[in-house]
Amino acid sequence: MRVTLIAVQSLDGFITRHGTPGAGFASEADQRYFRAALRGFDCSVMGRATYAQLRAEGGGQPDASRRRVVLTRTPEKFAAGTVPGAVEFTAEPPAGVVARLRAAGHRACALLGGAQIHSLFLAAGLVDELWLTVEPRLFGGGTPLLTAPADARLELLAHLPLDSGTLLLKYAVRR
Amino acid sequence: MRVTLIAVQSLDGFITRHGTPGAGFASEADQRYFRAALRGFDCSVMGRATYAQLRAEGGGQPDASRRRVVLTRTPEKFAAGTVPGAVEFTAEPPAGVVARLRAAGHRACALLGGAQIHSLFLAAGLVDELWLTVEPRLFGGGTPLLTAPADARLELLAHLPLDSGTLLLKYAVRR
Repeated sequence: MRVTLIAVQSLDGFITRHGTPGAGFASEADQRYFRAALRGFDCSVMGRATYAQLRAEGGGQPDASRRRVVLTRTPEKFAAGTVPGAVEFTAEPPAGVVARLRAAGHRACALLGGAQIHSLFLAAGLVDELWLTVEPRLFGGGTPLLTAPADARLELLAHLPLDSGTLLLKYAVRR
Repeated sequence: MRVTLIAVQSLDGFITRHGTPGAGFASEADQRYFRAALRGFDCSVMGRATYAQLRAEGGGQPDASRRRVVLTRTPEKFAAGTVPGAVEFTAEPPAGVVARLRAAGHRACALLGGAQIHSLFLAAGLVDELWLTVEPRLFGGGTPLLTAPADARLELLAHLPLDSGTLLLKYAVRR
């Protein structure tokens, strides 16, 4: 199973604009690309705040087209939100989540954030690719892509414009 | 006179690797491009630490091919390093420096950092273009591209690989 970190950031590396949560700054081109890209994944992993944000932005009940694993320290608090085959809450560590999804036969996992989740999975050596949308913005502050020091080397796979200003950069993480 | 901010950063927006000063992480491809790009500028502006770093990396005495304005709060301490037509030290504010260079007939000014200088000139509306080399690295910490919150919109001018992993991104700053 391949794990792909998918995020949108300002050119200077912030996934939120200053203190505003979520990716409301993302261009329409990125939002279209993101929805289409997700259809290529049979599961996704994210933190609870990111899950709430995506629900708020996307609206509606999550369908069973994709299994969503939501990480939280208190899964029992969110058990009522479980949707069999579509949404589950867990306090498992990253390696446990990935091993369980792989064992269940999943092939492609989208890692959807937030920043702490990015850092946890990267530090555990669990991220295979990084698909990063770079918006033509400078924020000078906000939530960084990663919350902890890292020193990862990447391999550039692709750089393509999504519209006149937004770039999609795809990298593989070197081992 | 056009002012072009030139910098090299990790994918996640850091111009130093953790606490290590300077751009020692920059690829050979970036270093070659940077030296060649500078030949297109008739003046440059930078902070004192950046000037010291560039001297240490490049070696030798600055020649008179390009006028270098070095910003410091205490120019009198560095007066002995002045080289007429090539190196000067000043405590002038950004707008004063740019006005003086423009009045002297300069056409193209390279803004070479560091991060505080980037933020000062950007906040003053003095940056026309941003030429940013993005190395295929994630640092998760270090000196950010900007030291102060900003909210600049950019226009993508070019995205081109300098080698198999390093990207050069060129943007105009929207007014």
